[in-house]
Amino acid sequence: MALPIRSKARSFFRFILRDRLRTRRFCAGGSAKVQEVPVGRVFSGIQPTGVPHLGNFLGALQSWVALQGQYDSVLYSIVDLHSITQPQDPRLLRQNVLDMAASLLACGIDPERSILFQQSQVSEHAELSWILGCLTSMPRLRHLPQWKMKSKQKNEGSVGLYTYPVLQAADILLYKSTHVPVGEDQVQHLELAQDLARIFNKQFGEFFPEPRALLSSTRKVKSLRDPSSKMSKSDPQNLATISLTDSPDDIVFKIRRAVTDFTSEVTFDPEGRPGVSNLVSVHAAVSGQTVEGVVRQARGLDTGQYKQVVAEAVVQRLEPLRREILRLRADRGYLESLLVHGARRARALASPVLIEVRRLVGFC
Amino acid sequence: MALPIRSKARSFFRFILRDRLRTRRFCAGGSAKVQEVPVGRVFSGIQPTGVPHLGNFLGALQSWVALQGQYDSVLYSIVDLHSITQPQDPRLLRQNVLDMAASLLACGIDPERSILFQQSQVSEHAELSWILGCLTSMPRLRHLPQWKMKSKQKNEGSVGLYTYPVLQAADILLYKSTHVPVGEDQVQHLELAQDLARIFNKQFGEFFPEPRALLSSTRKVKSLRDPSSKMSKSDPQNLATISLTDSPDDIVFKIRRAVTDFTSEVTFDPEGRPGVSNLVSVHAAVSGQTVEGVVRQARGLDTGQYKQVVAEAVVQRLEPLRREILRLRADRGYLESLLVHGARRARALASPVLIEVRRLVGFC
Repeated sequence: MALPIRSKARSFFRFILRDRLRTRRFCAGGSAKVQEVPVGRVFSGIQPTGVPHLGNFLGALQSWVALQGQYDSVLYSIVDLHSITQPQDPRLLRQNVLDMAASLLACGIDPERSILFQQSQVSEHAELSWILGCLTSMPRLRHLPQWKMKSKQKNEGSVGLYTYPVLQAADILLYKSTHVPVGEDQVQHLELAQDLARIFNKQFGEFFPEPRALLSSTRKVKSLRDPSSKMSKSDPQNLATISLTDSPDDIVFKIRRAVTDFTSEVTFDPEGRPGVSNLVSVHAAVSGQTVEGVVRQARGLDTGQYKQVVAEAVVQRLEPLRREILRLRADRGYLESLLVHGARRARALASPVLIEVRRLVGFC
Repeated sequence: MALPIRSKARSFFRFILRDRLRTRRFCAGGSAKVQEVPVGRVFSGIQPTGVPHLGNFLGALQSWVALQGQYDSVLYSIVDLHSITQPQDPRLLRQNVLDMAASLLACGIDPERSILFQQSQVSEHAELSWILGCLTSMPRLRHLPQWKMKSKQKNEGSVGLYTYPVLQAADILLYKSTHVPVGEDQVQHLELAQDLARIFNKQFGEFFPEPRALLSSTRKVKSLRDPSSKMSKSDPQNLATISLTDSPDDIVFKIRRAVTDFTSEVTFDPEGRPGVSNLVSVHAAVSGQTVEGVVRQARGLDTGQYKQVVAEAVVQRLEPLRREILRLRADRGYLESLLVHGARRARALASPVLIEVRRLVGFC
């Protein structure tokens, strides 16, 4: 994933847990079975880019679902305050928030186990961001990826784009989050949050836990038209990206047209054969098998035949999601009430933290 | 004043109203007398620097009091979010907020006619600031006075210091303010607020009025030790500044020691004789007379004798204020409840504006 994801897949399905977690024991049912569950709070955010694509799903969203069973407190935020650091069409933005909510639910985010909410509905994010901005030096932000990537494209970006990582730090610290799933390109942003926790604690007394990275080791899904780059919603080539709401016919067509090479055999060699290896990765991920397993099964198939196999596996995995997204999308009232409910729960956690921050800073 | 005042006097007692105001007519009592009162909303802020000094009082605060009778809606904010752009001691900051509240009341701010509140207690300020920051380009802020002045002193300042003028713009626009009393050194900051109103309106439809400057024509009060610089709370020379809580003896002593020159006569010549001219200005301001009037009265006195006259006039003007500040300061509970009440009233105005902003931007 990403913190927040910016329309590109950021994979981290299997986490490398860098630090030793505190654990707590609990008994499952009446049995004597003892399970170790990390005590902690996970926070992550995703930008409201509308319906996610296959790369988002395999990269971030599947892992979000898994984390719900692994931590005792999990928050997922649709980070619309972040999204306006680039120009947005207001009507489209609203629809994209609802589409993202529908998609997260369809992918398996359980709004009772997780707190699923829209960032702008919890005013404490912007407030803490202001306070943390007063503890952040200007040069500290200059070399962070968000600004370097985006401001180059647009010459000089907005103040919001520059201070984006400070708001990310506020998102995380506001809930005293302990663990944050991040893609490698977001590690420096998380380091800012860690630094700000330290700076705040040093100045005002021990208060924020230092959030730890949950780093992914999963391979990123590549564009179907150019397997040297990541699958991306903003790809101008329509055939490059599979949306979670693509019809089975569309999926079959896109995978059939996926760029591979002139070797007929199916092998896994991401460096030498990125196109077919991307299909193998996707196939393994959607079917829950190992790469070796799917390559073994594909023995004797040429890449044309194999594309059919991969397409069927993708359709099988995505079809129930697609239906659920379409069903939820049609129920705007439900989605809106869900977000109201989520914001209320998020505020209930954020509010006492910000009250205490205000007191520590000297506001009251 | 200042928007916000940063511990230095910013005079604007008599306003130059640049624009033609809309006016409304109303009947006073049963008479046929028709009075013209500008329809509009005044917003201004002052940093919580504790008890103000004579320069603040004559420069900003007297005019704040006067504006209460001139506009139909007036908001004064103790801008603590701005104050943390420089390091603050939390306990001192809290006390300074309360001292500033006591001082404003003592000077004549009527908490029923004006909305007197503490900025950090109205979360909408930081929220709108984030949104406006996404409409502000980074270079736009680089040459504004706040950053240029303060970042030089400290090499590179904080993100908060850099984005300070964006929060100022949010302070003003959040209440759809129409008029803002500013010192000349704050005009560029107000221009940013005007620009942001235009940019927002262009992008999302006509919404914010463009706030107009109420420029002061009053001479600033100078340091008693160095009449080439303004009276300032941060002046390291204790004798340079008269606090509103200075005792009569202290005031007499400080004015007696005020730097003048070797000419005995009392004249008004700010360029050639800044020291004695500063005393003349102060004398005129505290006694509500013209400069010419007080110079005429001082005929025949030498500067030593004149200092005694000025000191008496200052003591006479400040003594009731000092007593009232000390009385209010002792009633911490009252001051706190007053700020709670003010924040509630401010929020009642800010909340519907921010709800509408959120809708226009596409958050809901």
